[in-house]
Amino acid sequence: MAVPKTDIVELSPGDLLPRLKDQGYDAERVARRREWVQRKTGADLEHIGKVSYDPELMRGNIENPIGVAQVPMGIAGPVLVHGEHASGLFYVPMATSEGALIRSYERGMVALTKSGGVQTALLADENQIVPTFFFSDVHSARAFSRWLPQQREHLTTAAQTTTRHGRLTDLKTYQVGRQVLVNFGFFTGDAQGMNMLVKAADAACQWIVRNFPECRYFVFSGMSSEKRASGFLLTRGKGKRVTAGALLPHDVLRMYLHCTAEQLFAIWHSTMIGHLHANAIGYNAHLANGLTAIFIATGQDVANVVNAACGITYFELQKEGLFVSVTLPALTVATVGGGTGLPTQREALSIMDCVGSGKATRFAEIVAAAVLGGEISMGAAITSGEFVAAHEHYGRNRPK
Amino acid sequence: MAVPKTDIVELSPGDLLPRLKDQGYDAERVARRREWVQRKTGADLEHIGKVSYDPELMRGNIENPIGVAQVPMGIAGPVLVHGEHASGLFYVPMATSEGALIRSYERGMVALTKSGGVQTALLADENQIVPTFFFSDVHSARAFSRWLPQQREHLTTAAQTTTRHGRLTDLKTYQVGRQVLVNFGFFTGDAQGMNMLVKAADAACQWIVRNFPECRYFVFSGMSSEKRASGFLLTRGKGKRVTAGALLPHDVLRMYLHCTAEQLFAIWHSTMIGHLHANAIGYNAHLANGLTAIFIATGQDVANVVNAACGITYFELQKEGLFVSVTLPALTVATVGGGTGLPTQREALSIMDCVGSGKATRFAEIVAAAVLGGEISMGAAITSGEFVAAHEHYGRNRPK
Amino acid sequence: MAVPKTDIVELSPGDLLPRLKDQGYDAERVARRREWVQRKTGADLEHIGKVSYDPELMRGNIENPIGVAQVPMGIAGPVLVHGEHASGLFYVPMATSEGALIRSYERGMVALTKSGGVQTALLADENQIVPTFFFSDVHSARAFSRWLPQQREHLTTAAQTTTRHGRLTDLKTYQVGRQVLVNFGFFTGDAQGMNMLVKAADAACQWIVRNFPECRYFVFSGMSSEKRASGFLLTRGKGKRVTAGALLPHDVLRMYLHCTAEQLFAIWHSTMIGHLHANAIGYNAHLANGLTAIFIATGQDVANVVNAACGITYFELQKEGLFVSVTLPALTVATVGGGTGLPTQREALSIMDCVGSGKATRFAEIVAAAVLGGEISMGAAITSGEFVAAHEHYGRNRPK
Amino acid sequence: MAVPKTDIVELSPGDLLPRLKDQGYDAERVARRREWVQRKTGADLEHIGKVSYDPELMRGNIENPIGVAQVPMGIAGPVLVHGEHASGLFYVPMATSEGALIRSYERGMVALTKSGGVQTALLADENQIVPTFFFSDVHSARAFSRWLPQQREHLTTAAQTTTRHGRLTDLKTYQVGRQVLVNFGFFTGDAQGMNMLVKAADAACQWIVRNFPECRYFVFSGMSSEKRASGFLLTRGKGKRVTAGALLPHDVLRMYLHCTAEQLFAIWHSTMIGHLHANAIGYNAHLANGLTAIFIATGQDVANVVNAACGITYFELQKEGLFVSVTLPALTVATVGGGTGLPTQREALSIMDCVGSGKATRFAEIVAAAVLGGEISMGAAITSGEFVAAHEHYGRNRPK
Repeated sequence: MAVPKTDIVELSPGDLLPRLKDQGYDAERVARRREWVQRKTGADLEHIGKVSYDPELMRGNIENPIGVAQVPMGIAGPVLVHGEHASGLFYVPMATSEGALIRSYERGMVALTKSGGVQTALLADENQIVPTFFFSDVHSARAFSRWLPQQREHLTTAAQTTTRHGRLTDLKTYQVGRQVLVNFGFFTGDAQGMNMLVKAADAACQWIVRNFPECRYFVFSGMSSEKRASGFLLTRGKGKRVTAGALLPHDVLRMYLHCTAEQLFAIWHSTMIGHLHANAIGYNAHLANGLTAIFIATGQDVANVVNAACGITYFELQKEGLFVSVTLPALTVATVGGGTGLPTQREALSIMDCVGSGKATRFAEIVAAAVLGGEISMGAAITSGEFVAAHEHYGRNRPK
Repeated sequence: MAVPKTDIVELSPGDLLPRLKDQGYDAERVARRREWVQRKTGADLEHIGKVSYDPELMRGNIENPIGVAQVPMGIAGPVLVHGEHASGLFYVPMATSEGALIRSYERGMVALTKSGGVQTALLADENQIVPTFFFSDVHSARAFSRWLPQQREHLTTAAQTTTRHGRLTDLKTYQVGRQVLVNFGFFTGDAQGMNMLVKAADAACQWIVRNFPECRYFVFSGMSSEKRASGFLLTRGKGKRVTAGALLPHDVLRMYLHCTAEQLFAIWHSTMIGHLHANAIGYNAHLANGLTAIFIATGQDVANVVNAACGITYFELQKEGLFVSVTLPALTVATVGGGTGLPTQREALSIMDCVGSGKATRFAEIVAAAVLGGEISMGAAITSGEFVAAHEHYGRNRPK
Repeated sequence: MAVPKTDIVELSPGDLLPRLKDQGYDAERVARRREWVQRKTGADLEHIGKVSYDPELMRGNIENPIGVAQVPMGIAGPVLVHGEHASGLFYVPMATSEGALIRSYERGMVALTKSGGVQTALLADENQIVPTFFFSDVHSARAFSRWLPQQREHLTTAAQTTTRHGRLTDLKTYQVGRQVLVNFGFFTGDAQGMNMLVKAADAACQWIVRNFPECRYFVFSGMSSEKRASGFLLTRGKGKRVTAGALLPHDVLRMYLHCTAEQLFAIWHSTMIGHLHANAIGYNAHLANGLTAIFIATGQDVANVVNAACGITYFELQKEGLFVSVTLPALTVATVGGGTGLPTQREALSIMDCVGSGKATRFAEIVAAAVLGGEISMGAAITSGEFVAAHEHYGRNRPK
Repeated sequence: MAVPKTDIVELSPGDLLPRLKDQGYDAERVARRREWVQRKTGADLEHIGKVSYDPELMRGNIENPIGVAQVPMGIAGPVLVHGEHASGLFYVPMATSEGALIRSYERGMVALTKSGGVQTALLADENQIVPTFFFSDVHSARAFSRWLPQQREHLTTAAQTTTRHGRLTDLKTYQVGRQVLVNFGFFTGDAQGMNMLVKAADAACQWIVRNFPECRYFVFSGMSSEKRASGFLLTRGKGKRVTAGALLPHDVLRMYLHCTAEQLFAIWHSTMIGHLHANAIGYNAHLANGLTAIFIATGQDVANVVNAACGITYFELQKEGLFVSVTLPALTVATVGGGTGLPTQREALSIMDCVGSGKATRFAEIVAAAVLGGEISMGAAITSGEFVAAHEHYGRNRPK
């Protein structure tokens, strides 16, 4: 490209991935594709091929399947949850290859349980999508900005034609010059909901272009921050907003976390400055670790960890010990759709009785309680000087 | 907790996860633990138990193992890469349960290849860790801020005692009141490096406390933004900084992406406003999707997607077509350590000839090229109106 | 403080500023205070003492007055505004000591005017205040989060007891652990409104503590981002949200801005990447310059520039030329209260017929149009290479 | 513009501001211009015309002068500073129209002084400018990224031709696709330095284009965050980085700030959450207030408050009382150039013995100590419930 190349390269047909009948999800064709990759690259894909179920089940979850990634799954807990949708002792499946992670979460969850458990609260349940509309000038866009809020009933109806589970719950406009970002809030039930949202929003947008003169749109504007970190996630949310809190008594801190309330608070206090100085979004010890491991285990859209991890961990000293909480404004979790129905994923959800309809809010509360465990455990490991030792002991991700 | 509970709850011993001999990594004990979970929760964990290899291999990657998550793995590509460390046609394994994702990346990679391929550049290779030191007052901290930069040789020596692969490459101090954040930059070779970093930094910190009067430290300050999104990642980086770019000729745009250069640029241009308005970190279409799928397939620390996805996608119109690029300032990828040695993960790396020592930079260039494919494909799908249809066709993450 | 000092220093009474009768706003006492400073510091404060009006007028605007800062005031324009509240040609007073600034804004405003003028739109008019409430645990806070939205009428009544001009227009809660941030939106008419807001919010908070068991509050939580830059400002706004846009025809670009549409767009396009890479809030060329100069001239609360400058400048190529716009989501401007009634400030407002009640929306539209002029002029100066020369010619802020 | 207007509007010559001989800075021509504005707008500009000095002095600071904004100036202090460049008791001039502001800062400064004074530390002194270079493709840009750091001596020489006071102190490159952002750090002595920087950077850039084949550049990329809030300011800095800290003993807290250490800490602690939730840059109570008032009084570039206010305020409980600090990573202050030489501004600087060469670091330390006073006073007012009352008493910025 030193001299800009504009010639189209002719790939030989043999370089393209094989196109197989019915997209090739049956075991034989998955094997054939895998063998093609082996031949083409010299790789040996023995273990990837060891799928314990009929690969036809993967249809709708992946294309060009060659098998499975086997990600180690362990179990942490128990964590005692006092929520509205989840109540009792829970064991939490986590899939990861990071040594010491599960031990750390387990320790935190047990400490929370010994402290009397975790109170959780589901505060909002709305996913966001923000199409954007274009106009010829500022005044036309202004007219639209004022017209649209009055059309809510029509928009609801249009959206409803595409989904039985979704429901338009909010509508905001943000005009920027002659462009208008339209923020639809949707309730998406037990599904993560992005596909539902896109279809519903697109239907609403099509109604709009039929009814407002001369406008065009894109169904995405980037504002909704799906799988991105942003300030928007904090003020507008995405999916479930959940908070979880507990009071750690001095005895539990000393016996199970090997530190005092003051020491654990000092970690929070000093790392807050590090976060501020880094200009981070939110504040937390390692929410991404726990969320990722739970998301992989349970068939969530793992890329959503980017938004889900924009949470706020909070510690506060009080006479009786240390109050700790975690708040997740953008927890996009599901118990139906996506990967939640795949065999191991569904089994993992079943450990927490979170399979299927009516379970997403329950799951959200458990997740919040579980990751709170990780936050206190990490903090305690740092303050007690056990962090390095624990990773030395449990981890092995050092090159040999 | 309406009345703050400070009583310690006595968990019955039967509620705690079983502690097994040698932590229980052999097949029989993994089964016993799994059965314990089944009994305790009523779940049936048949497929989770189907590990195709000796679970002893998981030691160091997980605790309390019960089996594996089987995440569907597919293959995308080929993408033609013109890099320094990677050169040629590559097929990229991706593990995901999000329908349409692989098809989308595949389309983008093929379009890039037909355009003559992707130029890549590795621009930095340094991981960051930022311990923080505490002093009695501002003047003591100032004395430290001025003393420390002169001790670089000693710090290097101290760090070196813990690692053969790591190397201190940068040292910066950020004093905030009477606290001093000390930013160590380390070259970590082919490893993701956080464990190596923590040990090396801790050794350097211990040297410091022996040589500077009256200071304390925590080995983490939060500033390094490991698994968090922040502005720091953009200016200071984390792991590999890689960029990948290509020129899409008009013909390729029309034939393979079903849009014009102007249309694809319009998506970039308008969604930039959405990102700005959301106060997002970086700008991209869906970097997290591709990164997550590759990270799961290849045994990366998947939670690192949160930092790795803080990238910048860039489109620019030129006479011959559309120039497109993606820049990843914080791509923490590895070819040794962590989950990279697990059976399916190692096989996935082998598809790209990225197994083991000396391959991390090659892998980084391939990853950058691959996700550039996803960026253009997503943009094209939106502008051509194919996004909804494609998800309707390939996805099924809608509740039934 | 090397040994932490906890002794209280006894300042000699002669070190404290003189306390004068009635706080000392009459000319004689202002002089006496000034002379005291002169004696104490050896400074000669001749010009600071040259106040052209009775300093009693400063009461309520300042304490310990010693005179005035005389900030050079110039005039820029005309700018042709097509707004709802402002319509016609406007001349804009700007107070600054930065050479070349007014010339730059003037050039931009004239170019906009020659292009047919600027369309403006007022999109929101609501200031924000966010008290925060504390509870004993997560469940109590949750109960509050659900109770509060139903009390809107009571809150409105309570707030109304403190102000005739303010009006509660929005109410949102953000629970974080056991703390609940309560976002009150208020319409504040022609005043900047913070004092009005604080009083009204405080009254509402006092009603709350009388009616919800066991809660405490602080009237500020920091979330409202008064005089701070934040993502909140973009999604929730502060004061007036205004946008201004115009189409610059090719001829105007060439003749008055000495560049082409493509060149000016290239500046926007490339500096967008710089903003993204800096992790800036919003995007603009130099909004702070114009806003500061207008704010000083017209008696605004100048520190509000920090929030007001979080705007988004947007350029878009079209066949006829370059469409340009600026969007200010947090323009906290006033035509009553604060410094707007001081002699020179009121005169400056009168140049735009923006004195007193009913004029704040008019003023907001003029400000938006004016700063759009600065955005295009700065961009043009960079692209045409005139930036350095212009500052060489007009500026002199180089040390001699 | 409903129908896009591309006709160029013919302004009547009488609408343009009068062009006067030698740009019209003498008293008579300033008066003539002012009268023109009066005639044109009907405004009466009596007080604006009352300049107490020869307006020729404004040349280089403003264009189209019509007089001055008279901004009330008061005095706060004393604040006892223990710095390297400033040491002793200082009185700080502040120009503002916000009632209660000076009283609040005065109270805080006196409390700091009674506590034994403020330790300050100057930690960095470097302004930033980031030109951006464009290349045909990623590989050419990579070649440049690697070539440039070796040319530092040449760049220094080229920059040096334009300035005797500035000095190249740092050089970093950030490649994004085929664009390379080049971050020059400059020491700018006692000047704010932007004009010096632009000339020096432009000279360096011109040397580059003569010596590296086929590149173009813009002297600005937006990355340096001049007059903008960004994460870059925290990690890379801008101008002086200063920190100021003090220990407030319990007695001082009780007697002068009417609160306990615990109460004041509780404000910091809870508003931290508000800042995080707003996704603010930095954390502070109201740095912008004090900075703006000092900047106006002393002839600083007031728009720089936007970057300067991106600071971090920190509180920490200790046995003896409350440790408090403020850190300003981007304090762009000057004692030469810009408005610092204007009559009232120079007088204001002289109150602190900060006029002219060799005084900028002194001034920076005083500013940091002064604004720390404002941070603690604001916090104390909120916690003691005095905030509303104080504004009721001292302020009057309520509409009548």
